[in-house]
Amino acid sequence: MTAEKQLTVAIAGATGVVGGTVRAILEERDFPVGELRLLASERSRGRQLAFRGRDVTVDVLSADSFAGVDLAFFAAGGGGAKEFVPAAVAAGATVIDKSSTFRSDPDVPLVVPEVNPQALDRHKGIIATPNCSTIQMVVALKPIYDAAGITRVVVATYQSVSGSGRRGVDDLERQSREVVAGRPPTLGLYPYPIAFNLLPHIDSFLPTGYTKEEQKMVDETHKIFADARIGISPTCVRVPVYEAHSEAINVQTREKLTAAAARALLAAFPGIEVVDDPADLRYPMPLDAARRDAVFVGRIREDDTIENGLNFWCVCDNLRKGAALNAVQIAEELVRRGKL
Amino acid sequence: MTAEKQLTVAIAGATGVVGGTVRAILEERDFPVGELRLLASERSRGRQLAFRGRDVTVDVLSADSFAGVDLAFFAAGGGGAKEFVPAAVAAGATVIDKSSTFRSDPDVPLVVPEVNPQALDRHKGIIATPNCSTIQMVVALKPIYDAAGITRVVVATYQSVSGSGRRGVDDLERQSREVVAGRPPTLGLYPYPIAFNLLPHIDSFLPTGYTKEEQKMVDETHKIFADARIGISPTCVRVPVYEAHSEAINVQTREKLTAAAARALLAAFPGIEVVDDPADLRYPMPLDAARRDAVFVGRIREDDTIENGLNFWCVCDNLRKGAALNAVQIAEELVRRGKL
Repeated sequence: MTAEKQLTVAIAGATGVVGGTVRAILEERDFPVGELRLLASERSRGRQLAFRGRDVTVDVLSADSFAGVDLAFFAAGGGGAKEFVPAAVAAGATVIDKSSTFRSDPDVPLVVPEVNPQALDRHKGIIATPNCSTIQMVVALKPIYDAAGITRVVVATYQSVSGSGRRGVDDLERQSREVVAGRPPTLGLYPYPIAFNLLPHIDSFLPTGYTKEEQKMVDETHKIFADARIGISPTCVRVPVYEAHSEAINVQTREKLTAAAARALLAAFPGIEVVDDPADLRYPMPLDAARRDAVFVGRIREDDTIENGLNFWCVCDNLRKGAALNAVQIAEELVRRGKL
Repeated sequence: MTAEKQLTVAIAGATGVVGGTVRAILEERDFPVGELRLLASERSRGRQLAFRGRDVTVDVLSADSFAGVDLAFFAAGGGGAKEFVPAAVAAGATVIDKSSTFRSDPDVPLVVPEVNPQALDRHKGIIATPNCSTIQMVVALKPIYDAAGITRVVVATYQSVSGSGRRGVDDLERQSREVVAGRPPTLGLYPYPIAFNLLPHIDSFLPTGYTKEEQKMVDETHKIFADARIGISPTCVRVPVYEAHSEAINVQTREKLTAAAARALLAAFPGIEVVDDPADLRYPMPLDAARRDAVFVGRIREDDTIENGLNFWCVCDNLRKGAALNAVQIAEELVRRGKL
């Protein structure tokens, strides 16, 4: 992407997994960064991180960090967002926030550029990027929704540990080593071992019995499609995989879509790569999706237990399209729309 | 269990993972075994395996193995079943077969004792035990079916490598060691690495796009409930877990069941253990279910996207209740009914 204007860009939470991925993607996609400010907590002060072949020194994230900043990516958790996003907006920056803090705010667009780019036009300084498990699902649902309408989705997720940040990755790495060496796994971030195990528990539990992660899939999908009539019934599960979330998705459409028609619609949609040739044992898997940009869809088949039923399997790198890439694509869309 | 009559019992496929588990469970449950014959292929001839503190020598499985045998457990795969079950029946043995060979035969009862024990009364020498992924699901569905009727089930599975036998376990063990040591995983049984990955592919693909494993969940559930009107929409996925399969199950019932009512019904049902206290972070996990007998159910919650919707999470040791234990329980039920 090229643009006349070179922007002053900040990354708040620059030393985290998502912040680091934002930095890498800005470079990969040649985003028009004039100056880059890397911001993190006190303990990362002075660290040097590479950008376009030069070292950039990490500064401490504070309310004073944003003078002259055009665009601020926030990957600083809910706490960092609450504390510093208002200051960034007050300083004139446009903020793209990865946390859940502002996602349900009616004044904050919640955007996946392939799905609802028009929502960007009414932003007031803050744009939220959805949860990883939502992003890949709404990208896969969008062409189906547009062609045939969607009444209901039942989704079971298989979410990787990188969705929990570095401590989740550390748990799986350390515990795998321990188990392979015949030792009992030691606990870290998760309340139970994740190596060679499954945790049907992501984020905290609500009084309904659903987790916040599950409720996010419902609320965020409704907001992104601007359609609260879509029924979303989710079960979110953490699995011993490092990168890329997978989802088994069952959809009921308003109009009949054959598997072949769905496959063609999905294949033609930007951001989706269809990998669906069972005869040749081709289907999406997390090991193949990791470090790649697409939402991979396969195992597309009709579900004849209901009228207009479809099943498919969807895999996507939760750090890239599920987080950092989506944020950078929002910024690109803002540039394209003359909003930056 | 005690009975007057001591039975001559054979295990065909005695050196495999399931055959070994049958032997262990016969001992644990004090099944009335007078003589035990352990049968396997030529290369296991002469191996000694312990039963009740004594060594039993493995003999070669042949058409002549069954003279005087009252009860034969078959865990010898589809090939072994096709070749030798007829000879066992001809010799007068009652056969309990774990393979899929006879499951759809109308003359062969397909039995989960908690669900359809009455089907045993019409057996003609062969009884089939269902696929592991089916067994735990039908046990969990049974009390719900009896209380409220079931119109449709959407199920996503998370199946452990022991479901593929020793070679599946070997793949996960070897590949985990390799990855932990920084080496690329080498392939064995599975077409792709299973360590730190997911395979949305169990058994072979059918022209419909579903796998045989998925189709088994449909056909076997219909046969066990003697009700082909139940819609079953499955997605089966292999996960890097050693023992115990997990399933995210979405059910639509005919009559309304609250989550509390479903929890009470499940808790009261034989063979089910409810582990469902989110506030205390209590939910079923494969590490806890491994080597145990129950079907563990948790995350029970209402699904308000449809009338009469329920979601729950179900975990069970696929080698025990999913295979060997179910076979031994069938034998116990035959004894109880005076059929052995």
